[in-house]
Amino acid sequence: MNLIQKRVEKEYKEKKDFSLKDKRYYQKKLKEFGLKPLMQFMKYFPEPSENMKKGITYAHKDIEKIAEAIANKKPWAAVSGLNPSGPLHFGHKIVFEELLWMQKHGADIFIPLTNDESYIVGKSGSLAEARKIAYNQVIPSIIAMGFKPKKTHIFVDSDYPEIYNIAMDLSTKTTLNKSFKIFGFDQTEKGENPGTMFYRSAVQIAQILLPQYPEFGGPKPTLVPVGIDQYPYILLSRDVAEKKGFIPPASIFLKFLFGLDGKGKMSASKEDSSLFLTDSEERVRKIIKTAYTGGNPFADFQRKHGGIPEICPIYTLRINHINFKEKVKEECLSGEVLCGECKKRATKEVLQYLSKHQAKLPEAKKELYKYLLRTPIKSILDGK
Amino acid sequence: MNLIQKRVEKEYKEKKDFSLKDKRYYQKKLKEFGLKPLMQFMKYFPEPSENMKKGITYAHKDIEKIAEAIANKKPWAAVSGLNPSGPLHFGHKIVFEELLWMQKHGADIFIPLTNDESYIVGKSGSLAEARKIAYNQVIPSIIAMGFKPKKTHIFVDSDYPEIYNIAMDLSTKTTLNKSFKIFGFDQTEKGENPGTMFYRSAVQIAQILLPQYPEFGGPKPTLVPVGIDQYPYILLSRDVAEKKGFIPPASIFLKFLFGLDGKGKMSASKEDSSLFLTDSEERVRKIIKTAYTGGNPFADFQRKHGGIPEICPIYTLRINHINFKEKVKEECLSGEVLCGECKKRATKEVLQYLSKHQAKLPEAKKELYKYLLRTPIKSILDGK
Repeated sequence: MNLIQKRVEKEYKEKKDFSLKDKRYYQKKLKEFGLKPLMQFMKYFPEPSENMKKGITYAHKDIEKIAEAIANKKPWAAVSGLNPSGPLHFGHKIVFEELLWMQKHGADIFIPLTNDESYIVGKSGSLAEARKIAYNQVIPSIIAMGFKPKKTHIFVDSDYPEIYNIAMDLSTKTTLNKSFKIFGFDQTEKGENPGTMFYRSAVQIAQILLPQYPEFGGPKPTLVPVGIDQYPYILLSRDVAEKKGFIPPASIFLKFLFGLDGKGKMSASKEDSSLFLTDSEERVRKIIKTAYTGGNPFADFQRKHGGIPEICPIYTLRINHINFKEKVKEECLSGEVLCGECKKRATKEVLQYLSKHQAKLPEAKKELYKYLLRTPIKSILDGK
Repeated sequence: MNLIQKRVEKEYKEKKDFSLKDKRYYQKKLKEFGLKPLMQFMKYFPEPSENMKKGITYAHKDIEKIAEAIANKKPWAAVSGLNPSGPLHFGHKIVFEELLWMQKHGADIFIPLTNDESYIVGKSGSLAEARKIAYNQVIPSIIAMGFKPKKTHIFVDSDYPEIYNIAMDLSTKTTLNKSFKIFGFDQTEKGENPGTMFYRSAVQIAQILLPQYPEFGGPKPTLVPVGIDQYPYILLSRDVAEKKGFIPPASIFLKFLFGLDGKGKMSASKEDSSLFLTDSEERVRKIIKTAYTGGNPFADFQRKHGGIPEICPIYTLRINHINFKEKVKEECLSGEVLCGECKKRATKEVLQYLSKHQAKLPEAKKELYKYLLRTPIKSILDGK
């Protein structure tokens, strides 16, 4: 009994240490990249997003330009895409909630679905496989979240190869060496395929700067919501934007959603880590039931010491859904609500959300064509 | 007088040495790349091309496959493109004569006009600039040479961005490191732009393997006529073809046309080196008059020793036009026809060709749309 108690206390201490490490990781990255906490800036917005208020969206670069565009009702754009190697998960959901907030405040929304990246980095077996997922699973979920067709431009890279003309156009404004410094370079015989480095160095930048081409009204403030690990792309695109006479894109940074397996962030490529927007009730119940938590196997111990919400995937999942962040945290820390009960509540909340979301999918599939970007980029072809 | 005579003799000796060096260059390259002289193979063709008979097209890799396709009337393809940074010159003309020969013997002809390459390597100021030259100057000249619309597929890269989907599709079958080994890599801050390496490592290969995609009937023997300096592309594309289950492309090698300025090969980027198919009579007269030759400023000396046709741009230009190769060479070597007279004949022959060619251009411009490749590559999008 003593041995077990010791183990329990050790585990508790490890989780506590990890929560501090996680906090330090974000603080260190902010300092390293010269980013500013978003909290101090939020008063300038007419109405910050829920994720900003909850601290899920926590830092920014150049958000001043966006606040100005909103205040003066000037055109601005937002860009955020993803790898369609699987359906949307709850980590993506947070990003799209931010995009919805941006659309509400006047932004034109651009959503590249990068089936080329999925394929060339090995997450999908072919361009076609990732393309199919994009149309059948990803786009309907995006639409079902409530985007307006007129201000939303979704494209799958291989169906909008204009993006490669833009990538070629911008390619002379950067070098491979800059990318190698940022992303590293596999020097072995099995090293990088040419598509990967072109994607990272030019296609990604083309996607971010697309809204500033004449077809979409020319240079304008652009906001890119990203995870902190994506900052190198922002840096590269800011550099290229300046050389091209565009406005360097601003960005806001979102905290990763913890994977439910307790092993790093939620990611579509690790199935056990993720809750998908297309999940069945059965899968939701199962994956939440077996999920890692910030709690402790001994009820008595947890009632006394409380859980550690800062590292708990169930906690981060719940606070994204409900508005009583402080209450959930308190109930956990005080030991009032233990993990079993908390998981039950999480399951209920998630199923409630999914049932509403999934009911909208059939209609969303019918509306899909209204959202697809088809605008030819004639300015590049004609040099005007 | 003695001094001048010495100089004349020295110059003669230098030119002789150069002619041997040039011969050795081609022999060395054949050996280095394991290519075979075409001469020994020509008997297998029903009718070799004029340029083959004259030794302008001089070596091959895998031509056996093509001879077999011709003999059995099986489908085969030929691919050769160019950088549309200027109008076609007489060096290009030789390549297109070979393509015409291939079309006559059953090949489907694919001609990529790589305005992306023109732009990213700095030969054109923009994608649009090179695109304009492609449509206004290059394509009409190609059509005027006599290609049949049904078996000729011309495309400008930025108007056929499907080529980038193919490049992405093939990209997983090669690595950047292979390209670096072949093409070198500028490691400085001013180093390669990402587009250039993607072009060299993947887009170029996509162009060469395009005829083997299902939309064009699937795997088939493909012949690529190139200058020996282009062999690395052939090697890369053969490697990728095998991994993709395609037939490794065959190639024939053409000798460079000497530049009229006596400084290396004829090249559109060195204007003084080139005679263009769009040149005015005035420019033709001027550029041939001032051209470098294999001759000698002293008539007496040349009458005695003869000229050195092997290094003479006027000689190589003339033998491409007329069928009496041996006669021209003999007249030069024997000192019977001196450079002045030879240049007069060259001028007449070139003007004769250009007057016929340029008369066809207005009609060719009207027919242009019949030659443009627009086939979507659905097999990549659908994975079929």
